[in-house]
Order: sequence, then structure tokens, then C-alpha cells
Amino acid sequence: MGIILGENQYGKAENRVVRIYRETPRHEIKDINVGSALRGDFTAAHTDGDQRKVLPTDTQKQTAYAYAKEKGIASIEQYGLELARHFVDDYEPVDGARIEIEEYAWERAVVDGKEHDHTWVRKGQEVRTADITVEGKGEGQKTWVIGGLKDLVVLKSTGSEFHDFLEDEYTILQPTTDRVMSTSLVAKWRFTTTDVDWEAIYPAIKQIIVDTFATVQSLALQQTLYQMGKTILETYDFIAEVKLSAPNIHHFVYDLSPFGLENNKEVFNADDRPYGLIQATVTRDDAPDAGPAWTQQMAWLG
Amino acid sequence: MGIILGENQYGKAENRVVRIYRETPRHEIKDINVGSALRGDFTAAHTDGDQRKVLPTDTQKQTAYAYAKEKGIASIEQYGLELARHFVDDYEPVDGARIEIEEYAWERAVVDGKEHDHTWVRKGQEVRTADITVEGKGEGQKTWVIGGLKDLVVLKSTGSEFHDFLEDEYTILQPTTDRVMSTSLVAKWRFTTTDVDWEAIYPAIKQIIVDTFATVQSLALQQTLYQMGKTILETYDFIAEVKLSAPNIHHFVYDLSPFGLENNKEVFNADDRPYGLIQATVTRDDAPDAGPAWTQQMAWLG
Amino acid sequence: MGIILGENQYGKAENRVVRIYRETPRHEIKDINVGSALRGDFTAAHTDGDQRKVLPTDTQKQTAYAYAKEKGIASIEQYGLELARHFVDDYEPVDGARIEIEEYAWERAVVDGKEHDHTWVRKGQEVRTADITVEGKGEGQKTWVIGGLKDLVVLKSTGSEFHDFLEDEYTILQPTTDRVMSTSLVAKWRFTTTDVDWEAIYPAIKQIIVDTFATVQSLALQQTLYQMGKTILETYDFIAEVKLSAPNIHHFVYDLSPFGLENNKEVFNADDRPYGLIQATVTRDDAPDAGPAWTQQMAWLG
Amino acid sequence: MGIILGENQYGKAENRVVRIYRETPRHEIKDINVGSALRGDFTAAHTDGDQRKVLPTDTQKQTAYAYAKEKGIASIEQYGLELARHFVDDYEPVDGARIEIEEYAWERAVVDGKEHDHTWVRKGQEVRTADITVEGKGEGQKTWVIGGLKDLVVLKSTGSEFHDFLEDEYTILQPTTDRVMSTSLVAKWRFTTTDVDWEAIYPAIKQIIVDTFATVQSLALQQTLYQMGKTILETYDFIAEVKLSAPNIHHFVYDLSPFGLENNKEVFNADDRPYGLIQATVTRDDAPDAGPAWTQQMAWLG
Repeated sequence: MGIILGENQYGKAENRVVRIYRETPRHEIKDINVGSALRGDFTAAHTDGDQRKVLPTDTQKQTAYAYAKEKGIASIEQYGLELARHFVDDYEPVDGARIEIEEYAWERAVVDGKEHDHTWVRKGQEVRTADITVEGKGEGQKTWVIGGLKDLVVLKSTGSEFHDFLEDEYTILQPTTDRVMSTSLVAKWRFTTTDVDWEAIYPAIKQIIVDTFATVQSLALQQTLYQMGKTILETYDFIAEVKLSAPNIHHFVYDLSPFGLENNKEVFNADDRPYGLIQATVTRDDAPDAGPAWTQQMAWLG
Repeated sequence: MGIILGENQYGKAENRVVRIYRETPRHEIKDINVGSALRGDFTAAHTDGDQRKVLPTDTQKQTAYAYAKEKGIASIEQYGLELARHFVDDYEPVDGARIEIEEYAWERAVVDGKEHDHTWVRKGQEVRTADITVEGKGEGQKTWVIGGLKDLVVLKSTGSEFHDFLEDEYTILQPTTDRVMSTSLVAKWRFTTTDVDWEAIYPAIKQIIVDTFATVQSLALQQTLYQMGKTILETYDFIAEVKLSAPNIHHFVYDLSPFGLENNKEVFNADDRPYGLIQATVTRDDAPDAGPAWTQQMAWLG
Repeated sequence: MGIILGENQYGKAENRVVRIYRETPRHEIKDINVGSALRGDFTAAHTDGDQRKVLPTDTQKQTAYAYAKEKGIASIEQYGLELARHFVDDYEPVDGARIEIEEYAWERAVVDGKEHDHTWVRKGQEVRTADITVEGKGEGQKTWVIGGLKDLVVLKSTGSEFHDFLEDEYTILQPTTDRVMSTSLVAKWRFTTTDVDWEAIYPAIKQIIVDTFATVQSLALQQTLYQMGKTILETYDFIAEVKLSAPNIHHFVYDLSPFGLENNKEVFNADDRPYGLIQATVTRDDAPDAGPAWTQQMAWLG
Repeated sequence: MGIILGENQYGKAENRVVRIYRETPRHEIKDINVGSALRGDFTAAHTDGDQRKVLPTDTQKQTAYAYAKEKGIASIEQYGLELARHFVDDYEPVDGARIEIEEYAWERAVVDGKEHDHTWVRKGQEVRTADITVEGKGEGQKTWVIGGLKDLVVLKSTGSEFHDFLEDEYTILQPTTDRVMSTSLVAKWRFTTTDVDWEAIYPAIKQIIVDTFATVQSLALQQTLYQMGKTILETYDFIAEVKLSAPNIHHFVYDLSPFGLENNKEVFNADDRPYGLIQATVTRDDAPDAGPAWTQQMAWLG
């Protein structure tokens, strides 16, 4: 019996890289937050403080910025793949790399009815994400790409029900056939190929998510999430599974009866905490192995 | 010489009122965060704990929700005026009321190319604000309305300079004739009337702000802010003054020279702290007295 | 009638300066967040983009770090005074300077029962603050120092009442003679001299605040705040006024009656929003003029 | 080939339960944030919106508050075990339950040198955590308890080195034999029994963590983390593994040379982003299976 090093990784988190393309008067912008985590045999660094196999996190940072110039950021998926492959392919001690990226969207300022060449307003809606994992060297190298979004806040003022649930002695919730449903969605989808038009697939999947939220007469948030995942999988055969996490942002009908006022689902209190939290995976039954694709960096330990 | 009660106010902050209009199948939504602060002779509550002149903050909350139904929220300015006047007019001990409101914008989900009737996506961009102050009863009652926005994040990738500044022994900053300029703008404009089309004026002023940011060849953030305020005042004679606060979100050109890479303002590090903070008022020289219009609730003490 | 520049200031916010004193094996640490704002005749910078009177915010940053070495940080009040006087005294266009500082406290790690020489644990409690304003040059120069704290979270599980308040048609709140009272206090006190033992006065005032919160049988948060201010002023004749801002962090007795459980003020829901917000000034009736002492940088516009 | 429901869970997050014990004049307080997630066969809820097996998240909330009264909160581990077992044992469709709890510490106000009976100041330091998982019914039921802490911010001003690392063409970092090391630690330890004095073990493990941080002459953050885990495992044979996640909060020696000032590691800029992120598991080589012990609720999907 002994004490040993188990699962570990290290890297540089939250590099705020902004890339401007200025080859023509109409500039382009990519605004991202990128983190890298390296995996491999770093036992000596832990047990003896021996750094000879450790590529500094500062070097990982320099590489993230250098690659923004050398490789460009055509999409966060492509850029993440470049970084991950570099770390695994070019350093003997590195067996695996994880790249997590957030992308912040900008829309062009519209001046006199025309899109401006070099001015943008931050489009505050959802954040696009990519999680890339590369493992192993040479022939047997494996690659997993997960696209996603977070902070997509949606609300529907009708078309949502919740009733006929399990009841016990602590159940005082009243069933309803018409409630407000609102969430701040996190969704991630795992690709089975890297031969993807990354910039085209993202808005298409987001559209499926919004469409589904709007059009499903929802009997529960679970049902809505499942339909989102199912439709994505039915539409794109190169997506193996979809994971969704959705807080139920409670909008309570405010009790105006003490004041002699009717409240026919018109005035709500949007509550902060607690909130329901619904989480589901929709997957193909023959999905290829996810390997370490879902092993996180930022949220590795919560 | 004695110890006395000075400036004071009390109220209920951050009531998260959501108002749905559902008279037709095409619902409408107003999503706001409203705070109230009452001013008056509340000395006894402070010195003796005597609450007889104190309208509870809970009652202020109930009123905010009840008024969302009774008066509606046609605009945050109108709704805030209703609340402020109620507190001052209807309670003898209340001499003044301050209502601070934030409004969160939603845009309709677009499904099959058509705007959906009852589903929205939170438009994450800027937050619209209104600060209403009413003071005094009857004939001499005074009213101040301030419209505004915050968290409007904008960036231009060229068209910004900074040079020929004052230098001393601690100055190492290099002058530049071409830099990225980015800010997260707070702007507030004071009206001299309440006879305003509140829902029309807001997008018009926001457009001036964005236009100015885009089109001014900026020699300093100060110049850009001043032009924003000046244009607003030139356009709307019922606006007396404009206040602006703008962090300079530094985008540093990343040094890629150690790696033999040219960086012609293409790769930047978007830094968090510290940041420049530029704050200015643009005003008419004959602006009517602001009275307590700028005395805040949420940020009263920082 | 014309459009002119009104109140304005500019500076560098949130310089995260950490100062280690390592002259002996027992190191000392000061961990601060400092911002500077300069006031003066900066009209040309706004109207014409002329920077000749503008000391860059980058220079202000360099100075903040250089002064941490040159002048040291014996206390945030002393360090802030050094910076403010420098900006006003040494630059012709600068008529006034505002320095706002937050200090984060650390306590020494205790190892084998002894305080460690060079290791600390961040003491997460309240943040100490100082706001220094210097205005004018030479003989007539005026100086205001405000000490303070924020984020001091306190709770008492009894000894708080609220009843006999003003009632109207929207009042449903039940009076109580025993409730939980909790707040996250902001307090600021204005000195009338700079001849103060800054490091001694701070813990003494904090102790008065905590003592008062604990021992006053509170009929309202207003009463508690007033007693805090009054005791500080009675104790220290070189303090002119005290300002306090206190959210009423509602702890609602959770309704367990549907489950046949008694809840004798034992189980509470600590709510986030909305919250009462009580704000008061306690002052001497002959307090010297506050001038711009309360004109903020970070919260200038909310 | 088909599309199926994969891993899923649902529950109520962030119930802010505050429990006061007031049987004697000297009250006691427990202040927690508790979330529950249920696992089981909820396929019909996802595919058909059939809620008959779904215990509402509202019921889970009611139970969390009711149990604070019925079972009490002697420790977050014990309270979490009660809740988890209840959900698994008492509801046929529930196969597993996850309870995640944060505990906020309070220290008694000291008045006239004595601890006050019913007033506390929030001790802002680290947050204590517990993650309880129960799986299966009856004889074969399995239980995992993970204790932990987060937001433990520590700093040492010397006794930290970093050198002799792997270098490549992007490496510009200079080696150092004396640097500031600071982190905001997350640590979690997995018990192999529930027969533990939960209130005693927590401060003891925290002490090991602080001791190790202080006393190890660190050649890398990895080494420090490993030593923390190793010492915990050597001290407590009923702990199977320890996981640690540590941002390297960079304190950069500020360059004062342009001003002719020496900076012998006395003045630092505490930077926000990016930061190194070091994550490690220290485990017994014969540790019992972790099963779903590390499958998170709040950070399930990042």
C-alpha cells in the first residue's frame, strides 16, 4: 500500500486574446478567453519538485498569443485544435492536452444605416465555447472536439406546464398548466469528426435550441432539453451526444390579492435562489467513446 | 455643539419585477430591477427607534409590484414617476423619493423567419436605466428625470490616438497615433421636462453615442465623451446635461518579437486591471438646478 | 446659451499594489487596491483633444507603484495623502486629486502554535477603505481624509424588533418584537485632522461598530446605525461625521407548518433580493465643510 | 442505432438555509448553501413529459428546510447524509442522490473582551464544503462523503522557487529561486467511512494544508499540493484520496528601474488573468472505487 499521484493536469487559464484582422479597411475581430491544460507524466514535479518535464504555464500563454498570429483564429475549434496538437506532438512528456475556449461575440456598429468598418458593440447574449482534447502521439492519436454555448438566457411567457408529479409529505407545490419558463442555458455537443464548417454549424445549432425552446409545449424542462438534444442529433450525424444544463429561473406570480388586484400571470418576481437545476445527456446508443472529452479544466473540482 | 442626524434615506432595493402583457396572443415583456428610497423627517426612527413615520421597506416593495399591475410599465421613466409621486404625495412624512430602475432588454426569438409571440432571448447588451427624484408637495413640487444606460461595451480597432501628453519622471508611456479603444460606457442624461416619448428617445440617444464612438477620430477618450454629450445636447433641447463615465479597457499589443513574429496591432491582451477611468459632464451653461437629481441610492456611499 | 464642460475627473482605477517589507526575517505585507482621479482645467482635452495638460493615467499608475517603494505604505491614509499631495503640488494643471484605496487584511499563518514569518492567510472579513481629497495649491490647500470599511457582515439572532410603523393599503408586513438582523455594512468617517494614528484608530472604530450592533436592543436598523455614528463621534472629537449604508439582509422564518413542524425562529431562508437599504449620516452640527470629500471616483455615476 | 437519454440528474440548487440554535441564551448558528440532485430512471419525463416519477425540485427544497429542523445540522456531512439517504431510501424511482453543501463560518462578536451570546461577524475566509453521494437501495447501498474547502487564499513572500523547467522557442520566463507564491485553494478529501467526528476533522485538515503551504520550500506549486495531500493521507487512514486545484495568483515584481528605484521583491502587481492553474490528485494505490463520488451537480457541465 502506498500513496501515489493520481489524475493531474496543469496549464494557463484565462488568456484574454483579442485578434484583429486589418488586411482591408473592413477589420474583423475575434475576442476569446483561452485556457490550456497539459497531461502526462509529471510525477517528479509533484514528488521531488523536478521541473525538467514541465513546460511552464507562462510558455503556454506565450504560445496562445503567438498562435493567434501564426495560425489565426478562423474558429475557436480550429485554433484550439492547433494548440492542443502542438502541445501533444511537440513535447515528449506531454501525453494529452485540453484547450477550453470562450468566445465573446461582437456586432458591427451601424452608422447611417451602414455597418461600420472598425467599430463594434459587444453582443452580450450567449458565450460560445469549445473544449478540445487531444491524447496520444502519432498514429494512435485521438481527438475530441466539443462545441457549446453558455449564458443563453431565454424566457417564454406561456406554453409551459408542470403537473402530475410525484407527491409526498413535503410537497406543497401546486400543479400548473400555464407558467413562465426561463433558463440560462449551457449546452455542449460532441463532434465525431474535425471535418466541420465550424463557423456555420454553431449558429445552426443555436437556432435549433431557440426553436425548440419556443415551440415545444413543455410539460417539464427535462422534456424541452431532451427535444433540443434529439433534434440536434437527428440533424447532424457527426454529432455523437449533447449535454445540457439548465437552471429553472423561477418567475413566481406575485400575490396581489391582499391589495384587491387580480394577477392573471402578469406580474412576477424573478427570484435568484434557490433554483431548479435540470441536467441531461442525449446521446446516440452507438456513440464512440468519450474518453477524457468531458474532463474539465476550469471546473475540474467545481 | 451637538451630534445630529444628517442626510439620510431608506427604501427597498432590487425588486426584480417582470411584467407580461398577455391581452393578445403576441405577448409583451418588461423586465426591470427597481429600487425606492424615501427622504423626509425620519429623525425619531434614528434617535429613538420610533417607527411611526416610517413606511416599511416591505410596503415599498408591495407597491412596486402592485403598480406594475395598476399603472403598468409603459416605460421605466413613466413607471418610476408614478411610484415617486405616490410616495411623496400620499404620505405626510415623506418629503422626497428616489426611484432607480434598470431595464433588461429582450428580443423575440425568431422561428422559421418569424418573430415568436411569447418567447424571447435576453439581449445581453447594455442595461437601460432611469433615476427619478420627486421633492416637495403640492404646487412647489419638483421633479427630475434622468435617463441612461450602462454596460454598453464598444471597441474600435483604429481611429484612436493618444500623444503629446504631459510628461514627468514617472512617464514611460509611448505616444501612439493608432490604438484600440474600448470601454464599457455609463451615460446618464437629465431631462428638463416629463413630456417626453420615453420609448423613442432612448434608442435615439443610444444611436448618437454609438455613432460618435465610431466616427470621431479620437485624440483621447475625453474628446469622445465630450462629443457624445455635445451632440445629445445639440439634438435635444429638453436635455440639460449629460454625464459619462468610461473605463479605458486596455488592449495591449502583445509583444511577439521574442518569437520572431511581427505584431502589427493584430494580437492584443485585453487587460482587466488597472484601467483608466474617464468621467465628464457636458452641460448647458443655463441648465436648471440639478437639486438632488444626482444623489444616488445604490451608490450613495460607493 | 452654450454647451460647456462641467464636473470632470480622470485617473487610473484599481492598481493592485502589494508591498512586502522584508528587512527582517519576519516579513510584513500591505495588500491594496488604489485608484487616483485628477481634477483641474482639462477643457482642451475634452473640446479639442489637446493632451498637453493631461498627465497620463499610465503615469498615475507608475507613481502609485513607485510611491509604494519610495514612501512606503505605513497606512493607506498616509500613502493616499502622499499621492494626492504629489499630484496637486507638482503639476500646474492639477487643482485637485482624489485617491480611493481598499485594503485587504491578511493574518499570519500559525504553525506549531507560532505565527509564521512569511506566510499569511487572507482574512476575508471586511475591507478597509480610505478616500483622500486634496484641493488647491500652497497656503490655501485643503485636505479631507475619510476612513472606512465595507463588506462587514454581521448577524444577531435576537435583540432586534420592528413594529408600530406607518401602515397603508399596501402594508402586509407583520410587526415583530424578535427577529434576526443582519447586514453587510459600509461605514465611512471623516477626519478633521491628519494628525492621527491611522493604524490604531481603525480597529478602535471597527470595535465600536461591532459593539453597537451587538448591544443595542434595536427597534430599527436606523436606530442601530445612528448609535454607531453617535458613539464614534462622542469618542473621537477629530471625527466630524459618519456615513453608514446598510442592506437589511432578510432572514425569513421558513414556514414549516405545512409539515407539522414548529419553527420557533430556528430555520431561516437567507434571501438575496430585494433587500431593505438603510442609509444615514451622523454629524456634528458644527462640522467643517465637507467640500468635495464625498465626491467619488469609482461610484461617481453609480 | 437510436437516440437515447444518457447521464442525467435534477434537483434544487442553492437553498440558503440558516439554522439558529436558541435553546440557551448562548445561541449557535449554522449558515449553509445546499443543493440536491436526484438520479434514477427519469426517462419518461424527458421523452414524454411524464412527471409521475419526478419529485419536484420544490419538494426537495422544502425537505432541505424541514430537515434543518427535524434532523438539525450538527455538521454539513451529517446533514447531507440524512438528506441523501432520505431521497434514495424513501422514493422508489430514485437510485442515487447527490448533496452539495457550502458552509459559511461566523465568529462571535467580542464585546468587552467576552464572546457575545447572539451576535456574530462573518468570518470571510475559506468556505467549507461537503459532497455526499448515496447510490442504491437496501443492503448494497453505497455512500461516498467528500469533505473540502474552497477560497482559502494564502500567500508566502519567500520560500518559493521555480527553475530548471522545460524550455522551447516560446519560453521567455526567467527562472527564480525566490518568488511570492499565492493561491486561492480548492481541496477535497474523500472519506472511506462515515464514522468520523466531522467537526473535529475539518480544522485539523485545514491546519495541515496551511502548515504545508508555509513550511515546504516549494520548487513548484505541484510539489506543495502533493505534500498537502500526502500529509493528509499519512495522518488519516480513513481518507482515500485528496484532490487539489490551485490557481497561481501571479504577483509580478513591478519594474521600478525606469525611475531609478531598486525593487528587491518589495513592490508587486497582483495580476488577475491569466493565471497558472495546477490540479492534482493524491491517492492511496488501494483506494476503494470512487464510483460517482466526483460527479458534480453545480459544475457538472462547467
